[in-house]
Amino acid sequence: MTRWPLPQYMALALAQAREAADSGEVPIGAVVVKDKKVIATGRNAPRARHDPTSHAEIEAIREAARILGDERLTGCELWVTLEPCAMCAGAIAHARIARLYYAASDPKGGAVEHGARVFDHPQCLHRPEVYSGMGEAEAADLLRTFFRERR
Amino acid sequence: MTRWPLPQYMALALAQAREAADSGEVPIGAVVVKDKKVIATGRNAPRARHDPTSHAEIEAIREAARILGDERLTGCELWVTLEPCAMCAGAIAHARIARLYYAASDPKGGAVEHGARVFDHPQCLHRPEVYSGMGEAEAADLLRTFFRERR
Repeated sequence: MTRWPLPQYMALALAQAREAADSGEVPIGAVVVKDKKVIATGRNAPRARHDPTSHAEIEAIREAARILGDERLTGCELWVTLEPCAMCAGAIAHARIARLYYAASDPKGGAVEHGARVFDHPQCLHRPEVYSGMGEAEAADLLRTFFRERR
Repeated sequence: MTRWPLPQYMALALAQAREAADSGEVPIGAVVVKDKKVIATGRNAPRARHDPTSHAEIEAIREAARILGDERLTGCELWVTLEPCAMCAGAIAHARIARLYYAASDPKGGAVEHGARVFDHPQCLHRPEVYSGMGEAEAADLLRTFFRERR
């Protein structure tokens, strides 16, 4: 089977996810990109940080906004290894992320194509373009391995 | 008309909302309470902090988790002046908040009784008890005054 090469930003998000796993956190990673430049990276770290909001997307968005000195990440892309949950989808909308790329779908906790479908309601004031599936196998395998080792 | 007295924690959340308005931020305030003790307060500050996730609920939850040294705020209550958005409702679920009290409903941006209805999907792994309406008039008036002055 011929596969598309993994986009470099998703490869970077997967590297962040691997770092999360190495720290005993659920392996999810994210990257914020603007004008083809990486602005910030983030990885899941709620346990180490004692912060229930410390998901990869939130960490990357907060860091990018701090670096750019603006609460709005207009024109930025977010690359993340798993379908965002309701909290992260909401943050993506507040940050005005232009394009969202996620690797694996998450039927159990996702809120983009599952459950709350945060972007699909009039209460959502900004809807990014959404692309998914690139790096899906790698992202899902990281999560499977992580949970299997902890069972 | 006889009205119920304003619960002290909602009065504290309203005071936080007033402080937000004084700083030019949309007036929304929140308080985390455990065993009748105030653990943390928070107010809306995305402009000053350059942080799109800086909603009152997120600020209060992050501070409470830091103080308690635990990503889970088991047994805690969150008091907030406005119906939480999708991001904040998601954070409330991740934090395992036991009881959510909010003052005013928010048909335009709320995600508890409107729009995404974050707690009403199986993808939401924790649902707090939800109570609303206490301090509603005060909370709505703060918001109305804030936006009228800026028109």
